[in-house]
Amino acid sequence: MQHENIRTKIDLANTLADASGNIIKKYFRQPNLEAETKTTEISSIVTIADRLAEDAMVAIIKKEAPNDGIIREEGENIPSKNGYYWVLDPIDGTSSFVKGLPIFGTLIGLVDLDNNLPLLGCVNQPILQERWLGIRGQPPCFNQTIIDNIYTNNINYQLTEACLTSTTPLMFVTPRQQAIATRLQKVCRRTAFGGDCYNYVSLAMGWSSMPMVILESDLKYYDFCALIPIIEGVGAIITDWSGNPLNSHSTEILAASNQILHQQALKVILS
Amino acid sequence: MQHENIRTKIDLANTLADASGNIIKKYFRQPNLEAETKTTEISSIVTIADRLAEDAMVAIIKKEAPNDGIIREEGENIPSKNGYYWVLDPIDGTSSFVKGLPIFGTLIGLVDLDNNLPLLGCVNQPILQERWLGIRGQPPCFNQTIIDNIYTNNINYQLTEACLTSTTPLMFVTPRQQAIATRLQKVCRRTAFGGDCYNYVSLAMGWSSMPMVILESDLKYYDFCALIPIIEGVGAIITDWSGNPLNSHSTEILAASNQILHQQALKVILS
Repeated sequence: MQHENIRTKIDLANTLADASGNIIKKYFRQPNLEAETKTTEISSIVTIADRLAEDAMVAIIKKEAPNDGIIREEGENIPSKNGYYWVLDPIDGTSSFVKGLPIFGTLIGLVDLDNNLPLLGCVNQPILQERWLGIRGQPPCFNQTIIDNIYTNNINYQLTEACLTSTTPLMFVTPRQQAIATRLQKVCRRTAFGGDCYNYVSLAMGWSSMPMVILESDLKYYDFCALIPIIEGVGAIITDWSGNPLNSHSTEILAASNQILHQQALKVILS
Repeated sequence: MQHENIRTKIDLANTLADASGNIIKKYFRQPNLEAETKTTEISSIVTIADRLAEDAMVAIIKKEAPNDGIIREEGENIPSKNGYYWVLDPIDGTSSFVKGLPIFGTLIGLVDLDNNLPLLGCVNQPILQERWLGIRGQPPCFNQTIIDNIYTNNINYQLTEACLTSTTPLMFVTPRQQAIATRLQKVCRRTAFGGDCYNYVSLAMGWSSMPMVILESDLKYYDFCALIPIIEGVGAIITDWSGNPLNSHSTEILAASNQILHQQALKVILS
């Protein structure tokens, strides 16, 4: 994508984050969201805020970039006329949102589906006014400042010193997934649940005193697409459970602070 | 306790919250906290911030209320000369703290151990500048405003519409505890992990669109003491897993939005 083009897309991502954030803020910590359970899955609570925030983003994209397609959590996808797709999750971390915990995020990704490359990823937290923006091949930003954290293989991280995190153990659905999660839990220094997209931005920011491993399954494309440029932009690793690059069909995610740690986690997964 | 006396204790609780908060703020989202694992338990990460915040509170109590005893997370307990004990947990939610998630809290309780009554409970979140204060027999406050949420048995809450929450499934250690947690998960509408003290203040505030049930085990007195006046002050229920009032030896906690829901959860626990 050309320079002026990516600039336009960054501006649009920021506009989408502003618009969805303004809606979400109105509904945070307000009871009676009329949450509606579509299924019994953990990810199935849909709130009014979710729907309205997504609708607002879709309306803006249709107006500002009518040739771009949309892959979305709530509504029907919209085909692309130019190969670019916006991948939207208005509230990642609905569980935290409905409990009034400000550790959810709006995920806004932009991909070129021809070659499956996420070009841009934005995580927006409207309550704490925190925004992460990753551009493929560039260092990512936190609130418009370049993230001052670069992971390399210079540090020989070990799983035994790592914090393993997953949003919920209930995302490990199959016996195979449960066995893998249990194996990794046993090796890592500690395991913490909860967090959703905040686990990934925490890893990117280097907030934790421990190296981090994130193991998740049962995810959809909109749950992780926007995170890829942010994680990769700081030199950390995000792949599927076989170590392959993520694509729109991936559901099992493994992220780690560096390649050394990622390789160790992969070894446990594949053992 | 006499009126002027409780006023003094409230002032002291606020002073403790201010002092610990100032320390904790300096360490939040700073890497290299030199977290130290004492055991493999989930609650065993001790950070510098934890220690310094507790030390600061202990020093203030020794100076301002030298006859009061102290029950603390990190250091040695201090016996009481007047029957009153401060029950301190500098960072409840270390897991969130070390990941840079602002959903931990400083828990400050005051109890009269002669009759096991928590007189006062304070939850302080220094990053979000949120403070809850409960006084036995009075409506609790959030940031100095009376919480506008009262639970009664006027609503016939059902477990099937409730959000069940626990900080981590790893706190259910014994097969009996695991079986109970699984039974409740199967009945409730959804289960969300993570949250620590934030689950309790969320319940008290009525932030969730669903009635809430909190099931926890493996807790220490300082993990829940300060929460009791806040939960009970809004008419919600907090007991042990047998439905008995909590005391300093309790480890298994059940909280629910009202008595009707609490009774249903107890029935599942005891079935």
